[in-house]
Amino acid sequence: MNAEQFRRAGYQAIDRICDYHDSLRGRPVSCQVEPGYLRKALPSSAPTEGEDFQLIADDYQKYIIPGLTHWQHPSFFAYFPTSSTFEGILAELYASSTSNPGFNWSASPACTELEAVVMDWTAQLLGLDKSFYNSSEVGGGVIQTSASDSALVATVAARSRYIREHPHVAMEKLVLYTTTQTHSLGKKAGLVLGLTVRALEVTAQDDFALRGDTLKVALEEDVNAGFHPFILIGTVGTTSSGAVDRLDEIADVAKNYPLLWLHVDAAWAGVAFVCPEYREAYQLPAINSYIDSFCTNFHKWGLVHFDGSCLWVRHRRHLINALDVTPEFLQSKHGDAGTAIDYRNWHLGLGRRFRSLKFWFALRARGVNGFQKYITDCISLNTMFAQRIYESDLFSVVTKPSLAMTVFKITPKSLPHLETSELNALNRAFYARLAARSDIAITQTELNGVFCVRMVIGAEKTVEGDIEQALALMREEAMVLVGNWARMRG
Amino acid sequence: MNAEQFRRAGYQAIDRICDYHDSLRGRPVSCQVEPGYLRKALPSSAPTEGEDFQLIADDYQKYIIPGLTHWQHPSFFAYFPTSSTFEGILAELYASSTSNPGFNWSASPACTELEAVVMDWTAQLLGLDKSFYNSSEVGGGVIQTSASDSALVATVAARSRYIREHPHVAMEKLVLYTTTQTHSLGKKAGLVLGLTVRALEVTAQDDFALRGDTLKVALEEDVNAGFHPFILIGTVGTTSSGAVDRLDEIADVAKNYPLLWLHVDAAWAGVAFVCPEYREAYQLPAINSYIDSFCTNFHKWGLVHFDGSCLWVRHRRHLINALDVTPEFLQSKHGDAGTAIDYRNWHLGLGRRFRSLKFWFALRARGVNGFQKYITDCISLNTMFAQRIYESDLFSVVTKPSLAMTVFKITPKSLPHLETSELNALNRAFYARLAARSDIAITQTELNGVFCVRMVIGAEKTVEGDIEQALALMREEAMVLVGNWARMRG
Repeated sequence: MNAEQFRRAGYQAIDRICDYHDSLRGRPVSCQVEPGYLRKALPSSAPTEGEDFQLIADDYQKYIIPGLTHWQHPSFFAYFPTSSTFEGILAELYASSTSNPGFNWSASPACTELEAVVMDWTAQLLGLDKSFYNSSEVGGGVIQTSASDSALVATVAARSRYIREHPHVAMEKLVLYTTTQTHSLGKKAGLVLGLTVRALEVTAQDDFALRGDTLKVALEEDVNAGFHPFILIGTVGTTSSGAVDRLDEIADVAKNYPLLWLHVDAAWAGVAFVCPEYREAYQLPAINSYIDSFCTNFHKWGLVHFDGSCLWVRHRRHLINALDVTPEFLQSKHGDAGTAIDYRNWHLGLGRRFRSLKFWFALRARGVNGFQKYITDCISLNTMFAQRIYESDLFSVVTKPSLAMTVFKITPKSLPHLETSELNALNRAFYARLAARSDIAITQTELNGVFCVRMVIGAEKTVEGDIEQALALMREEAMVLVGNWARMRG
Repeated sequence: MNAEQFRRAGYQAIDRICDYHDSLRGRPVSCQVEPGYLRKALPSSAPTEGEDFQLIADDYQKYIIPGLTHWQHPSFFAYFPTSSTFEGILAELYASSTSNPGFNWSASPACTELEAVVMDWTAQLLGLDKSFYNSSEVGGGVIQTSASDSALVATVAARSRYIREHPHVAMEKLVLYTTTQTHSLGKKAGLVLGLTVRALEVTAQDDFALRGDTLKVALEEDVNAGFHPFILIGTVGTTSSGAVDRLDEIADVAKNYPLLWLHVDAAWAGVAFVCPEYREAYQLPAINSYIDSFCTNFHKWGLVHFDGSCLWVRHRRHLINALDVTPEFLQSKHGDAGTAIDYRNWHLGLGRRFRSLKFWFALRARGVNGFQKYITDCISLNTMFAQRIYESDLFSVVTKPSLAMTVFKITPKSLPHLETSELNALNRAFYARLAARSDIAITQTELNGVFCVRMVIGAEKTVEGDIEQALALMREEAMVLVGNWARMRG
């Protein structure tokens, strides 16, 4: 493909992306394909001779688009949102045109430098303490692939710091703390590193937040039993219900355990710190005062394409001490000192994409006001949704709504005396009916034995009418179920 | 930004990428910026109000492009190549327009399905055994971020398999084998996992390849001393010199250690298997018969954008056993069985970009013949370069050229009696002169105490004239040095 062929194919791609964008509302959210559909449709090997690009571009429309779940669809309320903005598409386009592995400053200075700058812009946007800025030359921020990677990197740094102080502690005696509500990233960090994970209990009464006393008891138990808790992964905005661990209480307990690393996973909720009004309730003061590392994923709710997981650390030296390997062929005159960061020592791998460009484009194109408007629009829509659930005779919230998430269940007033197991069965059936539909995408969860449905708002195209439509179809499915249930029991 | 503004900005981006491509040969390869240049040029925070995109696009040209190292420049001979093709840019463009985190089949079926298909196409392209194909439903292939991640995943799977069989072995007794020539990914896997790494010795006489006998002695020593070697990371095409570990001999020794996982890192050289004539010399028969996992990075020498590190395993269950965490909110009707792969259990994180699209585009647009032509063109250019080094009175090769890499040093016939330390000093000075130039990018290495310069050919734009130019400027710098040296010693 020469430059002129690329120009034609590129214009066409831009046009087709515009068409996709314009047609999104009219498409089903989830797709109708069966496992194996694509293998059946495609040849079993690559062609011998190269094919004309027009054929390939057309096959993308024919085979790929129909097999996608449309995460930017206005009726996508599942999991957490995944950003895809026009500014971000342009950033990925420019970045891919000068591909390089960016593992140190010299490999492509602009990539390292822009990452250092935009991580400071972003820290400021969220109201993070200046000790987390790259310009502090002590702490700093780095873009990771996902919150799992961020938590894994923090855990490796924490373990390394702990073992430096206690070189004779057996790995089997190290303990990583999470709660029962922590994202699977906690358990996975334990699996990857071969370390014991202890999930601390949280209760519905505490809105599934970890309390200081629970941590205190666990630490005493474990230390007395000869174990060495070395990190706690706390959460601001859990995946299941948007719960916020009581970092203020946790920090107070942790004061007596100076080698217990405090990592905060705020993958989804952290971006809401762009709005100052949510900072106190979502524990930013404690994060700024006490936390060793903090993660939020701008690729979720922050108008930046996947992958854009931001990790800030209070002391960069703990990352570098844990991860630095500098062989001869990577030595260069500009090392990992001062402003010339060698980001390869801040993450697990070596090479890295030029991911800061999409942050720069988004932050400039939207401005602080644009980010605030987007976040508050999503929260307003959720407030409206939650209000309708509160007023409903069919549904009730399971735990208090959190930012743009409402966790609810079907609890028909017409069926007042159901046992938990019956309610769970009813809710599983309700969720199954929603999951079978292609005009809404929504996910389930379980909170201490209670099966529930979780609604998260985040697509930029979602407006009030989409929430009304979601409520109407939920009501429709619930009514069918309640009718069936009454007949079965009648 | 609305769709029409995006269309204009998109067309402009395509045009500017064409211009960049056309102007590449005329640019310096490496850039002239100093550490901190970008922080000085940019504001210290994001703007309050969003900015016009034209301003942002112009600032990309003004501030970013001049700070890039141009890895696709025809005179880029440093590190290893990093692909950036027109087809790949288009794939990244389309993929970013429907961003989703693809962590399981349901999250976007086409993403999982296409990855499973193209990893089979790619396995076939390289001549890998069918037991590595996804269609085997026993083994399989997955796209990872980098060879470091691939090696880390293999190490985690190997450790998990070993610990299942030997549950009472302390982590401190586990040993990961590499050689002294293994890429830093081996040492980093050890750091990340907190495990002991033993780098086995290799010699210049063996062209820096690991021999079976060396492994045999190490295994006996370690097992007798109560250690548990559980994985060997072998290399096909080392970073420093393109060395190829003797996997045939290694497999023969490893037969007596059935829990010793054999991982092969062929990050750069593995792609050369697209040409059948290199398969035997680069140990494909042993890989196909004995190896547990195999990695090659198509984003290096395989016409696919970063990140596209391919990892194949003989038994997918070892990955899943080691990494599966399936919380309630990720349970779906299509689980990790048969063809509906849940790729989240095959890598470290959870979310993943839609990276298979760029493989599909590249494989179709170039065809098997296109890949073969690209690889053989690079190798021919290197053969020509190496021939000129052999014939030179200024330079000599340090170890036999490997595919598209030549490692050489300055050994002037006019200075016949230099000690190793003097030769090293001369070569460091020679390399420093090359590194100070902006019309060539090349890297250094050290092979068992000998400082040398490594030349790797891989940019698609490189032609014979570029090699001639590189040789001319190397000669020019060498002559200056030899003159200085003679005067100093004179």
